Amino acid sequence: MEGENKEDFDLNSHLRALQDWLGQQNLDLGYISNPVNINYLTGFYSDPEERVTALIAFPDHDPFLFVPALSVEAVKLTGWPYDVFGYLDHEEPFKLIADHINAATSTTKLWAIEKDDLPVFRYEAILKNFPQAAFPADASRFLEGQKLFKTPDEIALMVEAGQQADRAFAAGFAAIKAGVTEQEVVAEIEYAMMKEGVMNMSFDTIVQAGADAANPHGGPEKTKLQPGELVLFDLGTDNKGYMSDATRTVAFGEVTGKAKDIYDVCLEAQLTAQAAIKPGLTAAELDKIARDVITKAGYGEYFIHRLGHGIGTSTHEFPSIMEGNDMTLEPGMCFSIEPGIYIPGVAGVRIEDCVHVTETGSESFTHTSKEFTRID
Amino acid sequence: MEGENKEDFDLNSHLRALQDWLGQQNLDLGYISNPVNINYLTGFYSDPEERVTALIAFPDHDPFLFVPALSVEAVKLTGWPYDVFGYLDHEEPFKLIADHINAATSTTKLWAIEKDDLPVFRYEAILKNFPQAAFPADASRFLEGQKLFKTPDEIALMVEAGQQADRAFAAGFAAIKAGVTEQEVVAEIEYAMMKEGVMNMSFDTIVQAGADAANPHGGPEKTKLQPGELVLFDLGTDNKGYMSDATRTVAFGEVTGKAKDIYDVCLEAQLTAQAAIKPGLTAAELDKIARDVITKAGYGEYFIHRLGHGIGTSTHEFPSIMEGNDMTLEPGMCFSIEPGIYIPGVAGVRIEDCVHVTETGSESFTHTSKEFTRID
Repeated sequence: MEGENKEDFDLNSHLRALQDWLGQQNLDLGYISNPVNINYLTGFYSDPEERVTALIAFPDHDPFLFVPALSVEAVKLTGWPYDVFGYLDHEEPFKLIADHINAATSTTKLWAIEKDDLPVFRYEAILKNFPQAAFPADASRFLEGQKLFKTPDEIALMVEAGQQADRAFAAGFAAIKAGVTEQEVVAEIEYAMMKEGVMNMSFDTIVQAGADAANPHGGPEKTKLQPGELVLFDLGTDNKGYMSDATRTVAFGEVTGKAKDIYDVCLEAQLTAQAAIKPGLTAAELDKIARDVITKAGYGEYFIHRLGHGIGTSTHEFPSIMEGNDMTLEPGMCFSIEPGIYIPGVAGVRIEDCVHVTETGSESFTHTSKEFTRID
Repeated sequence: MEGENKEDFDLNSHLRALQDWLGQQNLDLGYISNPVNINYLTGFYSDPEERVTALIAFPDHDPFLFVPALSVEAVKLTGWPYDVFGYLDHEEPFKLIADHINAATSTTKLWAIEKDDLPVFRYEAILKNFPQAAFPADASRFLEGQKLFKTPDEIALMVEAGQQADRAFAAGFAAIKAGVTEQEVVAEIEYAMMKEGVMNMSFDTIVQAGADAANPHGGPEKTKLQPGELVLFDLGTDNKGYMSDATRTVAFGEVTGKAKDIYDVCLEAQLTAQAAIKPGLTAAELDKIARDVITKAGYGEYFIHRLGHGIGTSTHEFPSIMEGNDMTLEPGMCFSIEPGIYIPGVAGVRIEDCVHVTETGSESFTHTSKEFTRID
């Protein structure tokens, strides 16, 4: 939300861009259903679970929000200057949406929907109420393109989110001691964040000790931390709708041998890739720069995911830093650089910063040291 | 997961029921995409975010799981006895799924998909790979019907989840003191839960003081608790995939006047409805029993949501306890009874237990006192 009344709200560049696109595509209306994108466009966020929430936008007149009745007050509190319509649980939402759309416009043939979000059941409900509707444009593609480039205001929020993540690492490292479980360390991290008012992590915090870290994206278990093992932390925060995401792997006590070796290789891959970022490089080229380091060291088969993902209003968005993506990196793009080496039954290492591309290179949102760090 | 090898796994009644239904409907295959339902059917849970995860089931031969490569190990750790296929980030998932399906069967015309879950983009990707495919059956409807009735094993997990919620209330009530914020109380509740190994609440914990509680489903704010106001707690836990959900509203210090009045009315509505539950009553009749109490007391316009929702593998499922739902309550159904009265700018009260229907009435999953409780 950029202002408190309708005139100020008109400055909202995200919503204006959607309206312009609808006009350029000769569409009659847009049906936006992804709660994250509704927030991006309106400043109102709600997880509606099974209830229907939608932003209906038009190329040439005012949009409206359609929400569960129990969210109408929350919409008004955001300062949303246009209409908001509620529905009660026993009412048929798509019948009401159709009534509101028909009251707003007489041309309802050409729709943009979010094809990544709208489930088939609701798609069929739209078709039932608008049998002549056609869906020539995918608002998911338009919005993912819009969201590729962050404004300075958005980057400022992501810088704050990165600072929160750095403090979360500090809380996590401070909780390391022999006999404490991975889950207890997560408890300390999320408690520290909530105590400072960060109520939502951007995803469930991951703490994995020893061989547990060889399962990327596994959850924290009751495994007890013990000296002589690596401990992997992957965490992030949600700062007013903008996300951080970072990973550090630290040594609890003395760690040598293969675990130390894959740390060194992973770090070299991460630092090499991060230093190589500049406008004009493609996403695939960047992935290859990190992958080559790991492959040359003999661990290529253990790096089983892409180098990185875009980040912003979601933890995973575009650009995807991977083989086959020839998208050119440009200033304002934000993404992770997170090589990982996972040797089942032995150890896992991942090191991750998210960055934004600048005119000459990149800047990281997180600054916790990546040097091999021993905690006793 | 009911067993460690394929023979034991065949006992899994949920997956078997899906296969039987596919056969009865003369369908060639089922494409299950909702992560919660994949867990219900296979014992494997993962939030795949933007990546594709699917269970492909057939009426007469073995199913398979299709997951991101970095989740293959996690599937194997669950003991899943059938095939699991992974894909790398740069691969085209629906091309691979098509190859695996074509390797498994030569009849691929009649599909069941989950129309509540499958987004249009993926629906179109299936159609692109199987241009002859038809979608005569909605697996969402089948699974919601299956999940209406909980087995004794499932109810045992929900009883445990209810006990966790009762301990969460105790932690929250203990955190009440003048000057503490709603968010800080949430921090204490979720920290207490994580310390005992409950890593996921079933939804973001709600603590709302005074007039904040008049916005149902608003989040916790930086509002400070002060004596003389009601404080509303709505919380629940995720116990191995089965949810609890309960609400208590307590008085911080002396609370009188309208706030006390709406508490008394809301409690009478909640107790009257909960006592009325028995097999044979309809969902709409039950909603009306509570609503009549509130309407007679003059607060009908402030009770702006249904009486309750089903609960089990999700916080909100079926049956929906609301006007217009003539579904008959039967033993094994689980749902909430949560009347609420919300007077904007003044106060809000909601009181909620989830119950399971028995042969003669119902049993609650939560047992924290609902009597007007003053905390000093």
